Amino acid sequence: MRQQKMLIPTLRNVGEEAQMASHRWMLRAGMIRQMAAGVYSYLPLAYRSLRKVEQIVREEMDRIGAQELLLPALTTAELWQETGRWDTYGAELVKLHDRHEREFLLGPTHEEVITHLVRNEVNSYKKLPIALYQIQTKFRDERRPRSGLLRGREFLMKDAYSFHGDHETLDATYQDMYNAYQRIFTRLGLDFRAVEADSGAMGGSENHEFMVLSESGEDTLVMCNACDYAANLETAYVGEKQEQTIDRKEVPPMEKVATPGASSIQAVSQFLDKQPTELVKSLLFIADEQPVLVLLRGDHEANEVKVKQVMEARHCELADDETVQRVTGAPIGFVGPVGLGDEVTILADHGVKRLQDPVLGANEKDAHFIHALPERDFRVDRYGDLRTVVEGDACPRCDGTFRFARGIEVGHVFKLGTRYSDDMGATFLNPQGKEESLIMGCYGIGISRVLAAIVEQQHDEHGIIWPSAVAPFQVHLIAVNVKDEAQVKLADSLYEKLTGMGIQVLYDDRPDRAGAKFKDADLIGIPLRVIVGKKAAEGTIEYKLRRTGESGELNSDELTSQLTKLIKQADAALS
Amino acid sequence: MRQQKMLIPTLRNVGEEAQMASHRWMLRAGMIRQMAAGVYSYLPLAYRSLRKVEQIVREEMDRIGAQELLLPALTTAELWQETGRWDTYGAELVKLHDRHEREFLLGPTHEEVITHLVRNEVNSYKKLPIALYQIQTKFRDERRPRSGLLRGREFLMKDAYSFHGDHETLDATYQDMYNAYQRIFTRLGLDFRAVEADSGAMGGSENHEFMVLSESGEDTLVMCNACDYAANLETAYVGEKQEQTIDRKEVPPMEKVATPGASSIQAVSQFLDKQPTELVKSLLFIADEQPVLVLLRGDHEANEVKVKQVMEARHCELADDETVQRVTGAPIGFVGPVGLGDEVTILADHGVKRLQDPVLGANEKDAHFIHALPERDFRVDRYGDLRTVVEGDACPRCDGTFRFARGIEVGHVFKLGTRYSDDMGATFLNPQGKEESLIMGCYGIGISRVLAAIVEQQHDEHGIIWPSAVAPFQVHLIAVNVKDEAQVKLADSLYEKLTGMGIQVLYDDRPDRAGAKFKDADLIGIPLRVIVGKKAAEGTIEYKLRRTGESGELNSDELTSQLTKLIKQADAALS
Repeated sequence: MRQQKMLIPTLRNVGEEAQMASHRWMLRAGMIRQMAAGVYSYLPLAYRSLRKVEQIVREEMDRIGAQELLLPALTTAELWQETGRWDTYGAELVKLHDRHEREFLLGPTHEEVITHLVRNEVNSYKKLPIALYQIQTKFRDERRPRSGLLRGREFLMKDAYSFHGDHETLDATYQDMYNAYQRIFTRLGLDFRAVEADSGAMGGSENHEFMVLSESGEDTLVMCNACDYAANLETAYVGEKQEQTIDRKEVPPMEKVATPGASSIQAVSQFLDKQPTELVKSLLFIADEQPVLVLLRGDHEANEVKVKQVMEARHCELADDETVQRVTGAPIGFVGPVGLGDEVTILADHGVKRLQDPVLGANEKDAHFIHALPERDFRVDRYGDLRTVVEGDACPRCDGTFRFARGIEVGHVFKLGTRYSDDMGATFLNPQGKEESLIMGCYGIGISRVLAAIVEQQHDEHGIIWPSAVAPFQVHLIAVNVKDEAQVKLADSLYEKLTGMGIQVLYDDRPDRAGAKFKDADLIGIPLRVIVGKKAAEGTIEYKLRRTGESGELNSDELTSQLTKLIKQADAALS
Repeated sequence: MRQQKMLIPTLRNVGEEAQMASHRWMLRAGMIRQMAAGVYSYLPLAYRSLRKVEQIVREEMDRIGAQELLLPALTTAELWQETGRWDTYGAELVKLHDRHEREFLLGPTHEEVITHLVRNEVNSYKKLPIALYQIQTKFRDERRPRSGLLRGREFLMKDAYSFHGDHETLDATYQDMYNAYQRIFTRLGLDFRAVEADSGAMGGSENHEFMVLSESGEDTLVMCNACDYAANLETAYVGEKQEQTIDRKEVPPMEKVATPGASSIQAVSQFLDKQPTELVKSLLFIADEQPVLVLLRGDHEANEVKVKQVMEARHCELADDETVQRVTGAPIGFVGPVGLGDEVTILADHGVKRLQDPVLGANEKDAHFIHALPERDFRVDRYGDLRTVVEGDACPRCDGTFRFARGIEVGHVFKLGTRYSDDMGATFLNPQGKEESLIMGCYGIGISRVLAAIVEQQHDEHGIIWPSAVAPFQVHLIAVNVKDEAQVKLADSLYEKLTGMGIQVLYDDRPDRAGAKFKDADLIGIPLRVIVGKKAAEGTIEYKLRRTGESGELNSDELTSQLTKLIKQADAALS
């Protein structure tokens, strides 16, 4: 493609509102433009890359036997009412009605639609398992769509769904998808990690998020420094370190002390001259209407998902002020386990076991207990892993410890079980002729987000550095001075030759200054640059690799024979 | 792909609501399913064909240098308010609002969005001309979406837009697009006609509709039986036949006759014992507030578009009862030109010239004039082509006459001029540094409608007959009896061999009866069928062409060498 007439409106600057690197660079490289908050046009360069991402995803889906289809974006309210999500999905759901006042939504995801299709069309175990996928525009009315393609209100997604008659085939398809995702993100040149995710919240179903490692990511990943255990922050388990023996024989009897106005961990530790690590934090939760007091070391944070999981509850949340007062007799900040009756379940995090001489709330305003020992002074119904991990915590799988990283979620694989098929009466006849609910899995990739994630990871201070697999073009051919006939003649002939070979070439034939052209080339980030400059008359050209800056001269006749090697070299530093 | 696990839910019958052949066959072949009126899921078979249609369109767009991009479906109300279409587009426009109560629409077409993009990014003649296109889901809330994919509320479209600094390049791009459309619809195996369309309505800009010929089409095409003139019914011009000399010397003086209650052409002709062809029909229009009386032969129909064009009006419509009474003094049915003052423009269709002895309304209830002659008894300000053509009318280009046909509109190319750029202030600097409005063209193809139009044209009483170019698979391989080891072994090996060659094969490996398998194969309509049956042990297979029913036996080793020939043969009857 000749650059002269191609719509690549590069910019020298972009406004303050573009905070994320990918947002900034894609605007500056003339790849995207905003139509409304979170709603973007993909200009020709970006669309070329987007289609390459799509194609890689499609190939890997086809390879594991998933069948591509296309479901409508318009979805009737009735389907989402069957699963209750019409009411529970929240403000992100884009609702509308047609000319006959019939209610619709624009699909943010398609579990209901696909389950509806499959319940009508697949009724026997003989047709199972089956995996279906689509690449489609989705709509989510995000509250703060401020990160370019990373968080759009209209975005492209690959969503796949599998249906099974038994858990064995679900496990197999899940593994196929997991492996396909590994191949996809590897082919896309991404540095990523598959992490265990929030399984508790969905009743123990297995699921993994695929995270692209990036300082600017919204998610925190927990990774072991020794083994390959990785999880998201909400899900990571704390390994129990070899217990240090705690000897509490010398601890004096429990004693109530006045702590006027000290209703925070920080205030209590200052007032009593203790470390937060010597205090017990007591938090009251309500898990399916059951009051649960959770005890943690003062510097630790409770993990609601884990509490919910331990309590086998459907809902779990922190109690409000009024409930705390009613159940414990004390305001928030002075709550503790001492003296609570059987109607309150008392859970303690493992970390509480190792406190030598704990301080905790006295269930009385402006008072705390010191020397309050579990078992001796108060009851603990159960110990468990109830907190969010911190850096340096022990890995639950090996002797390693945790480090944190930031990530961008680009994919998710999930064993749904019968969550949707139960609600929607999606059943099949098993080999015994008995009706059973279909067992489901779902598997998503944010196609447009992937594009941004690539840029987030692969750019420098001059612009984007595309991996060859998704670069809008393979070669950026630049005629330095189009007033120089020799340059134009050689560049023209190289353009013909390369495109004739099936190489995708962006040919900068613009009458602009050399400096401006190189600046644009850096911005756009095509991996291999071929420069036809002053030595054109001698048939000498220059090549430059966008990633490493490595450059050299070549006789123009050598170019075609060197091309494969150079393109490979341009990606070399990727791995 | 093995048919056993592929989602192809064929049906023996479909409900009464599916009236159109394409709707019925695509439902029965397990290709589409309805989610709501006019909203369909494309199942795997249909999606494969759809992508082939897309690819052909894409190749031809790329070939003429159009650049692909992707605009958002969500469009802010503000953009459509700039052109006034937010209010004038009507109930087909799907409006919605976001969580902040900001108004949006779902694009039924993208003139505003692309003009908005281009006005921001293209500001100089140096960047012109430019042609941009996308393949995208569109939304139109049709009142009666009852024809399957032919008229959906959510559908796929290719829409292209070109921007120019002068009319010469618009003409050139228009011609490129016209030629590309010819190639596209030819490659798709369609019998189609490019027809001149409603140019008057848009201020004389040139435009063509591409019509697939089909008895079930909603549109009427007018075609000359001698030359290649073709137009849609609203636009076709009536050729003036060699005038027969009319001698009105003997016509008696005009005379008023009572015609009590005879307010229609039919009633007047019966009452006066005349033919409708001997009467004059007088219709009052209001063209931009100017009253216009249009005179036609009694059996002819007025063509509003032509009246509007002759009057060079922006708006033109039939006057209501009250206006007719006020302007002519008579109720509808008794209106005529005699005695009307200069404030009313009187136009007469050419057909009125050849009336020997006309009858017309007397501008008085229950009265008509007989022997009323133009020039002698009433004024005619202007003669013109003001009526809708009828079969047998003369061609305006040659000596031929018109015949009618039915068609399905699948494409439209249009010179928009500055209609949108004027409203939206989309300008560029010309070589003299002066600001001018961008000149535009737009070019659409209904991608999903094309798929249905192909089926509409290409089916028989057993099912669909796909042209190879868009068939979901190239070969339908059928193992007649999967309990027969020799058959399975041979079919399996052919499947491996063919797919290894890059041939797209649907392999019917189902344990069903042969009859059911053949019925499904006819329904699905893959052009070339390869049947592995009883002679498998001898290595003999049968082939059958879906279109002609032609069949023969082959040694399985010969299949690969014969394949290209057979696939070509399968399409042969197409041309």
